[in-house]
Amino acid sequence: MDSDLLRHGLHTVWLDVDPGHDDALALTLAGHSSRLHLLGVSTVAGNQTVEKVTTNCLSVLEAAGLADTAVVKGQGKPLMRSAPLLCPEIHGSSGLDLRIGSLPSPTRQALPGKAVNVMFERISAHHAARGQRVSLVCTGVLTNAALLLLLYPEMADSLQQIVLMGGCMGVGNTHPVAEFNIQCDPEAAKVVFESGVKVVMVPLEVTHTALATDDIIADICPHAPFGRLVKDIILYFAETYRTVFNFQAPPLHDPCAVAYVARPDIFQVQHMRVDVETSSSLTAGQTVCDVWGQSPLPPNVHVAKVMDVASFWAMMKESIQTASQQSQIIWPPTGVGT
Amino acid sequence: MDSDLLRHGLHTVWLDVDPGHDDALALTLAGHSSRLHLLGVSTVAGNQTVEKVTTNCLSVLEAAGLADTAVVKGQGKPLMRSAPLLCPEIHGSSGLDLRIGSLPSPTRQALPGKAVNVMFERISAHHAARGQRVSLVCTGVLTNAALLLLLYPEMADSLQQIVLMGGCMGVGNTHPVAEFNIQCDPEAAKVVFESGVKVVMVPLEVTHTALATDDIIADICPHAPFGRLVKDIILYFAETYRTVFNFQAPPLHDPCAVAYVARPDIFQVQHMRVDVETSSSLTAGQTVCDVWGQSPLPPNVHVAKVMDVASFWAMMKESIQTASQQSQIIWPPTGVGT
Amino acid sequence: MDSDLLRHGLHTVWLDVDPGHDDALALTLAGHSSRLHLLGVSTVAGNQTVEKVTTNCLSVLEAAGLADTAVVKGQGKPLMRSAPLLCPEIHGSSGLDLRIGSLPSPTRQALPGKAVNVMFERISAHHAARGQRVSLVCTGVLTNAALLLLLYPEMADSLQQIVLMGGCMGVGNTHPVAEFNIQCDPEAAKVVFESGVKVVMVPLEVTHTALATDDIIADICPHAPFGRLVKDIILYFAETYRTVFNFQAPPLHDPCAVAYVARPDIFQVQHMRVDVETSSSLTAGQTVCDVWGQSPLPPNVHVAKVMDVASFWAMMKESIQTASQQSQIIWPPTGVGT
Amino acid sequence: MDSDLLRHGLHTVWLDVDPGHDDALALTLAGHSSRLHLLGVSTVAGNQTVEKVTTNCLSVLEAAGLADTAVVKGQGKPLMRSAPLLCPEIHGSSGLDLRIGSLPSPTRQALPGKAVNVMFERISAHHAARGQRVSLVCTGVLTNAALLLLLYPEMADSLQQIVLMGGCMGVGNTHPVAEFNIQCDPEAAKVVFESGVKVVMVPLEVTHTALATDDIIADICPHAPFGRLVKDIILYFAETYRTVFNFQAPPLHDPCAVAYVARPDIFQVQHMRVDVETSSSLTAGQTVCDVWGQSPLPPNVHVAKVMDVASFWAMMKESIQTASQQSQIIWPPTGVGT
Repeated sequence: MDSDLLRHGLHTVWLDVDPGHDDALALTLAGHSSRLHLLGVSTVAGNQTVEKVTTNCLSVLEAAGLADTAVVKGQGKPLMRSAPLLCPEIHGSSGLDLRIGSLPSPTRQALPGKAVNVMFERISAHHAARGQRVSLVCTGVLTNAALLLLLYPEMADSLQQIVLMGGCMGVGNTHPVAEFNIQCDPEAAKVVFESGVKVVMVPLEVTHTALATDDIIADICPHAPFGRLVKDIILYFAETYRTVFNFQAPPLHDPCAVAYVARPDIFQVQHMRVDVETSSSLTAGQTVCDVWGQSPLPPNVHVAKVMDVASFWAMMKESIQTASQQSQIIWPPTGVGT
Repeated sequence: MDSDLLRHGLHTVWLDVDPGHDDALALTLAGHSSRLHLLGVSTVAGNQTVEKVTTNCLSVLEAAGLADTAVVKGQGKPLMRSAPLLCPEIHGSSGLDLRIGSLPSPTRQALPGKAVNVMFERISAHHAARGQRVSLVCTGVLTNAALLLLLYPEMADSLQQIVLMGGCMGVGNTHPVAEFNIQCDPEAAKVVFESGVKVVMVPLEVTHTALATDDIIADICPHAPFGRLVKDIILYFAETYRTVFNFQAPPLHDPCAVAYVARPDIFQVQHMRVDVETSSSLTAGQTVCDVWGQSPLPPNVHVAKVMDVASFWAMMKESIQTASQQSQIIWPPTGVGT
Repeated sequence: MDSDLLRHGLHTVWLDVDPGHDDALALTLAGHSSRLHLLGVSTVAGNQTVEKVTTNCLSVLEAAGLADTAVVKGQGKPLMRSAPLLCPEIHGSSGLDLRIGSLPSPTRQALPGKAVNVMFERISAHHAARGQRVSLVCTGVLTNAALLLLLYPEMADSLQQIVLMGGCMGVGNTHPVAEFNIQCDPEAAKVVFESGVKVVMVPLEVTHTALATDDIIADICPHAPFGRLVKDIILYFAETYRTVFNFQAPPLHDPCAVAYVARPDIFQVQHMRVDVETSSSLTAGQTVCDVWGQSPLPPNVHVAKVMDVASFWAMMKESIQTASQQSQIIWPPTGVGT
Repeated sequence: MDSDLLRHGLHTVWLDVDPGHDDALALTLAGHSSRLHLLGVSTVAGNQTVEKVTTNCLSVLEAAGLADTAVVKGQGKPLMRSAPLLCPEIHGSSGLDLRIGSLPSPTRQALPGKAVNVMFERISAHHAARGQRVSLVCTGVLTNAALLLLLYPEMADSLQQIVLMGGCMGVGNTHPVAEFNIQCDPEAAKVVFESGVKVVMVPLEVTHTALATDDIIADICPHAPFGRLVKDIILYFAETYRTVFNFQAPPLHDPCAVAYVARPDIFQVQHMRVDVETSSSLTAGQTVCDVWGQSPLPPNVHVAKVMDVASFWAMMKESIQTASQQSQIIWPPTGVGT
């Protein structure tokens, strides 16, 4: 039973985010890529508290001309770890700080109910009605995804894949050998990785190649108000990445995972065993990637190793342009200089 | 705002079980104690698969004259561990094997929906309508309880306490230093123990004093059909406990936790720190009980250390008598000798 | 090739200690039992620093009329743990505090060299010359024993057995589920337990039955000066055990391990798997005793479960009497009242 | 007090090895560098059993004209892990297999006694006599080094530094995130890293830049018999590295650590915290390198990050030339074709 979406070659995506500067770009790409249909968005504590990132999510969607997209608030803390790690040194105290001004407050609220219940209902309903399975793209901590699979194991039938930004093969970022999203809730990552659902991991080794240099910024952000906003978002991120990690240009992690759904052909991927360390206090949150094929356990994760960066930026540029046409935001805010 | 229940001094209980021979007695006690109001029952994989224990639960309730009690099926596997431990060597392949005959199949089905959603709705509604908080009594693996608290942290307001049969201070049963219910899903136990809700743990050290000797069996099981069924349930359990653990009489673990809600005065309890081991492959599932007060962490569990056994049996006897009056079961089944 | 020792039915013992009040009694028993030949003594950090316990060891031996016994200083810290746990709350700041007065300083020094080298040389030489293998009795932390086996695996041929005071099947002492000697250096215990040498463990469950009540003290300590010293040693220990652990009478842990070599017939022992927890920060130092026979690994330790306490005290009394005859100590010290 | 060695700017080295193809080159460099004085050599199980690598060590030294260098056999197994990992897939069944022929058997034996005792005596004596501290260079598993520091903590005074080939900041070799030498005996590595002695770690990230390409081989191996032997050693290694790890040219790991002592100026080094994972079964043996400076613990290891490869090969070439002049080996063996 072919749906309209399938006829037009569109992939349907549910996006789970914690905006977050790069999450904002992921929302833009998911909502405006010509290859994607964005079914809904859930939020999760990570870059900031779930309350803050939910507000940010609603604001970004309105700014991007996506005010009709369903949004539901998800989990506020990791499964087993008592306090959520937050990341104000990168994303600021709001989770989406800007150098000048701030995004308009959202004019609507998130849907009532728990994210995992809403996700189950809407994804199942989409699958039943359209005959098309959905890609769940997670650009934050995996708490929602894990809880969804724990409470609704039957969910697996309606999921095409889970694509996540997170993990690393070698050196980490907020930890010597772990990446932030996995480090925040290692148990959730373990549940997802061992769920039997197809999992695609886009690790730091790939996202660290999506560096938003000045040339890139100039190219992908046209002069319409929304493009100017994207530029301001990236420039704040650039500054904190320079200060904290000594990067010359900031890596746009999250949109890379969205890009995989739209254009898997621009990625080189290796199917391998990935085990998440949960027991060691020294390395909890590490994604142990069996790069040499030494594990006795079967492969369980498709790990992206290389991305065609030029194609990625072309997709980003297209989506920002579409957003700019649909956005009604006034930016910079009246009376705010640069 | 006082409710009828409060006026009559009744405690309201939600019972989470995996029947299971001793669970059957826990259901009888919870449903027929003159001090308790049984709000509903949820099931969880443990002694057998969740499908089998749900069927057993419905059968036991009908046999005990409790056919109106709400039942909902819960989680079929632990949070993080891939396969549920089952216990056929103690409870048989059905989870409630008898030496002769078997319980009639239930005439109804469990409620639709997920246990944690139903538990949240009914417990919250009871609290809102009656102004009385509910005791959640868990006599099986803690997966449902943990998932309930993860998805609905606001649930804590409507819970008086979580009373669980499980854990040990010293020697374990299905493991050198761990008890079955905690060993099956250590991560769930950790979530519950660290939830901030009042937790009462009734460990092996107490339940191993509730030994159903021949004298006890003769005393608590009158000749009505239901009493005869209870006797048959205990005798099967007696036999497997003799074979596996070399016990002279079987310990009726699960009703002890129910008894705590009805008669906390018959227990000696120590408030102490209890940490659940989840990281070690050698001791996962151990409840590390800070008996000497050496932990720097605050006490989080009320551990029962001694139970007045005579009072316990008196409560059991009363509940079995009440059940016998309301039961319509024909037992032993027609045509089945002893 | 039969030696004199064998002809007289004497067992030869090397004693590894950290005196320590109960260690002092272990030294007395090892040096004066009519069934034992004490080949030498090594010391190890535990109850106090290795410097202090070495001094205490020399003092106790002189007081007990054993000034000729070879003594060598051993390891000052655990294999992997950075700081040695000490136990001043039980043994005082000297490691052998008394209520009144103190032991005379020793008139000699320990042998030069490292304990493990001296132990290897003397035990091997004894075995070669006499054709008799030696029992290594450890009443302290197992660092020396482990290092001996690591550096000299060939040592196994000359050892009859390693008998140790330590570990527990259930509740611990300085830790909820661990005993002090194992907790101090879990890695050393693991090396010893997995060495392939016959290991006999005398755990808390046994040593907590060797309670020095007032009646016992009155019985085993005759009026000669040395008996009076023993009484003073026990009374100090009694006081700290009352304060710290609320014991009515103090358990004389260490001599129980020596007693096993002299009289194995007064112990009930079970051969079982014992694994030492080294990886968990929660339970490091626990001796996980496979009491139910559930481990897939082969038995590796003979665990004492019951001791004939009356026979034990008879041995203690005999050794204290012999010591009193040979001791030249003046006790209480001149001018010190009681 | 200046010694001859100091006057001539020579560094004195004790080399701890498990030859091993790249160890053979490390022996050559340590014995023939114009900047080094080789005090002695100890062996350790690793690439092969300690018996085999000791024989190989003696053979290589004779072949290289170093027949007078002191050699002593060290530990045959790791501290805590029961079986030594060996590496026949890289080094062959002898530990030093060649494509054609084999090294002549040694004409002498290793010194009697335990390596750690001999190392302590000779290094202390050198320090006392010459007033010069010694660099301990470990190119194998760290068991000897750890045991030396455990038994002789006073050894620290006579050691300039411990320089080791091992560990990694990112991807490992015999394990996804661990390097062979550390993986074999993680506890030994932890003891060394936390000993307080200056530790320099030359990890895979550096040694994987010392690739012996055909051009390099042609350059550093002149036509004298010994150069031809070196070439044959490297070519065997090249073949197994191509098969197992798909390397185009083999990395000469071990001489890099020796090179550091002679020429620290050709390395870029970062002082950082390095913790060795010992508790996790998933990542035991990982060197968790705090590259971002996030650890609360103080730096304890100098990690080499970059080596001037051209300078390294120049040193290798010089040492092979000197060895060729002093070697009396006949190679290839008479009657063996190529």
